[in-house]
Amino acid sequence: MNPINQRIGEALSRIRATKPLIHHITNLVVMNDTANVTLHVGGLPVMAHDVEEVAEMVTHAGALVLNVGTLSPDWVESMLVAGRRANELGIPIVLDPVGAGATQLRTATDLKLLRSLNIGIVRGNGGEIGALSGIGGEVRGVESIAAPDDPVAAARTLAQTYHTVVALTSARDIITDGARVFTVSNGHIWLTTLTGTGCMATTMVAAFAAVERDYLLAAAGGLAMFGLAAELAAEKAHGPASFKMALFDQIYNLTPEQVAAGAKVVELDS
Amino acid sequence: MNPINQRIGEALSRIRATKPLIHHITNLVVMNDTANVTLHVGGLPVMAHDVEEVAEMVTHAGALVLNVGTLSPDWVESMLVAGRRANELGIPIVLDPVGAGATQLRTATDLKLLRSLNIGIVRGNGGEIGALSGIGGEVRGVESIAAPDDPVAAARTLAQTYHTVVALTSARDIITDGARVFTVSNGHIWLTTLTGTGCMATTMVAAFAAVERDYLLAAAGGLAMFGLAAELAAEKAHGPASFKMALFDQIYNLTPEQVAAGAKVVELDS
Amino acid sequence: MNPINQRIGEALSRIRATKPLIHHITNLVVMNDTANVTLHVGGLPVMAHDVEEVAEMVTHAGALVLNVGTLSPDWVESMLVAGRRANELGIPIVLDPVGAGATQLRTATDLKLLRSLNIGIVRGNGGEIGALSGIGGEVRGVESIAAPDDPVAAARTLAQTYHTVVALTSARDIITDGARVFTVSNGHIWLTTLTGTGCMATTMVAAFAAVERDYLLAAAGGLAMFGLAAELAAEKAHGPASFKMALFDQIYNLTPEQVAAGAKVVELDS
Repeated sequence: MNPINQRIGEALSRIRATKPLIHHITNLVVMNDTANVTLHVGGLPVMAHDVEEVAEMVTHAGALVLNVGTLSPDWVESMLVAGRRANELGIPIVLDPVGAGATQLRTATDLKLLRSLNIGIVRGNGGEIGALSGIGGEVRGVESIAAPDDPVAAARTLAQTYHTVVALTSARDIITDGARVFTVSNGHIWLTTLTGTGCMATTMVAAFAAVERDYLLAAAGGLAMFGLAAELAAEKAHGPASFKMALFDQIYNLTPEQVAAGAKVVELDS
Repeated sequence: MNPINQRIGEALSRIRATKPLIHHITNLVVMNDTANVTLHVGGLPVMAHDVEEVAEMVTHAGALVLNVGTLSPDWVESMLVAGRRANELGIPIVLDPVGAGATQLRTATDLKLLRSLNIGIVRGNGGEIGALSGIGGEVRGVESIAAPDDPVAAARTLAQTYHTVVALTSARDIITDGARVFTVSNGHIWLTTLTGTGCMATTMVAAFAAVERDYLLAAAGGLAMFGLAAELAAEKAHGPASFKMALFDQIYNLTPEQVAAGAKVVELDS
Repeated sequence: MNPINQRIGEALSRIRATKPLIHHITNLVVMNDTANVTLHVGGLPVMAHDVEEVAEMVTHAGALVLNVGTLSPDWVESMLVAGRRANELGIPIVLDPVGAGATQLRTATDLKLLRSLNIGIVRGNGGEIGALSGIGGEVRGVESIAAPDDPVAAARTLAQTYHTVVALTSARDIITDGARVFTVSNGHIWLTTLTGTGCMATTMVAAFAAVERDYLLAAAGGLAMFGLAAELAAEKAHGPASFKMALFDQIYNLTPEQVAAGAKVVELDS
């Protein structure tokens, strides 16, 4: 087995053994789903957004998810407070810039978070990463309508500008720290028929980041496992809702050995 | 095939072809469900409520859903801001007056929205439409306990007062612009065992309104397709949750041809 | 049949016959699930949190659920307003102290609610009840990491201090008013793989409290029925999501006779 796959399997074993708390300040649409995904992959979820408690809550976390899907000013303030504390403690932050490019408020908020905090990983779709990188990309609502012509260049630019790892999810996911580039080819078209699958992928990445500080590998692990669960779930799907049920069951049932064997991660030549 | 059914099938084809963005300012209970229903029928959902972004977000929308199920003053303000912009742009607004009649705040808020905005379609249950029409109806929480004795009269009165189309859902749905009256007889009793099925019906209507500016027809199309999906889902249900899974799968799987064939829409003699 | 089981079955019959409104001021993660659980057990759910309407809404309720899972100051204020009105009207209040012990804000808020209101039943996990009783217990996020060594003592202390009934859920649930102690042994390990099962249990207890003013019995009934549904659902589960679907179906399908026959409730010798 190649060393990347082996390390991904080992990371999942550590998630299951240590049950890291994944503190989410996230959107109202996906809270239930991402809490369940956190449990199924092996972590413990908490959704807490009040500015009076987020700095305390995050001290116990293995990772912090900031997701702007239904943003409002007070929640953004809580993201900054929790994020600064996470940075002080060396707790990884994963940013999901939902709908970046769709409104000025969303784009501006994401850029403020990227400038104010040390973000470990940004997980977004092509349109969102394109909008934040400045290279361009079209987002309608929260959906990527037009990805950048060169998604690798967009991801690299954003990673270099903010000294972060960027995970651009699409049929073939691209993960880069601005220098090295990995791709993940797991996944299934059914994922596009459900709301919140991007947010779920972000949660998977955060669970891996809690136990694997090589963020390229953490992002690859989370996305590969999520995509692999989707591939297996698709065999039982009669539509989006039965696909979703099977997807959640699979995330729970997948073993470290299965993930290590099934992850389709490749490092591109630079 | 009668022309109404044919046009309903054509409307679904247009939804699937154009993927209209359905901007929801909606309640906290059903956000995930209505986002998924939007995707399954063929549109793109976005849930955005911050007053700083709603006017910009709605410019890209095919329809705007305003749903007061868990209302608070700042969200109502955002509804007014988004609604005014939608009116300027000719984007249809669909109002779901969840719990009208249950508290003074809900009834007053719905009437304020009806007076301040040009609402294309109001979709509510018998108790809600009765309360807003002034004819009476009893609502406990968000459930219609007592519908008006003459639901057609209640719907007509409300439609005439606010120059809108009213869709009153029940075992037999009533749709009227104050003059013409359509009924839709699709549906299944299982729908009453789940939370948010009224809100889902509203989302279906909004998706059709995004592509069909005859709002009588749009409301009939959305409700007929939703009810038809429920009929087919009931065959696979062992309880409310398995019914819900099958319902969502069916909304996705139904073709324009099936909907055109299965819609039970009748225009009443006036 | 022993009298406890018989009374539990009778309580379920009353829920189904009278459809009590269960007013929730609850967290953003579980709203959809607890609304559905309310419907499936036989009640009517309403989620309403605006301070301008909660006092009016609660007047029609059979029980009021206060759940601090994603608390914020304005919602806590609404809890106090709704709670005072419920107390005036003799409507039972069920408190779910989600995450008590995890942050100072949560613990302080729960204690404030316990001091300010006449709470009928507190339903929490071992860590939460331990933290509130002062006996100790560890909570990570919203999960009980370490329960008190003597959970009966912790529950009794909390019950005596605030003159309430405490329902501490675990593999074996403990219910006490500070003097008498009941245990409930229904349940299944699958419940620990899903978010919000504690909140769902609280909703079940509230539905029973709406029709049974012996709160020891109401708590026992709600927890026994929930656990029994889980036992039956486990037979059809392939993972957490298929378990959840079966659980919700079972809550709906269970008859008063089945619950009376299957409830494993024991009164401990004092």
